[in-house]
Amino acid sequence: MYTLHPQLQADTFPVCDMELCEARLMNDRRFPWVILVPRRDGVTEVHQLSADEQNLLIHESSLTAGVLSRMFEADKINVAALGNLVPQLHWHVIARSRGDRAWPGPVWGYGERLPYEKKESAALLTKLQDTLRGMPCG
Amino acid sequence: MYTLHPQLQADTFPVCDMELCEARLMNDRRFPWVILVPRRDGVTEVHQLSADEQNLLIHESSLTAGVLSRMFEADKINVAALGNLVPQLHWHVIARSRGDRAWPGPVWGYGERLPYEKKESAALLTKLQDTLRGMPCG
Repeated sequence: MYTLHPQLQADTFPVCDMELCEARLMNDRRFPWVILVPRRDGVTEVHQLSADEQNLLIHESSLTAGVLSRMFEADKINVAALGNLVPQLHWHVIARSRGDRAWPGPVWGYGERLPYEKKESAALLTKLQDTLRGMPCG
Repeated sequence: MYTLHPQLQADTFPVCDMELCEARLMNDRRFPWVILVPRRDGVTEVHQLSADEQNLLIHESSLTAGVLSRMFEADKINVAALGNLVPQLHWHVIARSRGDRAWPGPVWGYGERLPYEKKESAALLTKLQDTLRGMPCG
């Protein structure tokens, strides 16, 4: 049975379910940052997924990347699976801007998370949901 | 025509050609770190590749991840495409250990690269080439 890791639950808002992954918004207003969590229990590495699941993961990642890129006019998209702290496999898709606080460094481990105001996260979640729902995998 | 970015050329050693990517070893003995560069010119983002190319990329990444994981008895594999500094699309596959210098943080931007001794890189390259050549995509 798939259960979301409590740390991911605490740090993110639910966006939508894709075919393989649960898409969630990181509660950090410094960076537009979506986390994709494959709904597979006990998986910690991308290469533990089946070939079909890996194809779905990269497809859902790219779908999310395209949406974030257009929505935030990003200069760069960063995608990654690290998991050094939270073992459950989760995939980062982050819209980066040349002016953002961590640029050009990575966002992980950079300073403190800055939570959204409630209205702000609600508006962004609606926007992401409306956009992703129009997509093949959303 | 595909040309490797001069920065990637300077920082890495060639390992082998896979179906989509050129695999290269990062010249940094602190971390077992392979860079996969899709042989496609002008591509800066994973989502700019075709669906088939994205599938190949994740497949070649996982092949490399499995090899590094076994070879170095890694605690974790980190995979990522950042490209905030070098625009040419390149994909990181890094074997992490709980005892490594940057753990549990990311390796990018962490301290100074520590180049291999010549004998050491030659031995590792041979080992990687021999292992990857036995693989479907190597």
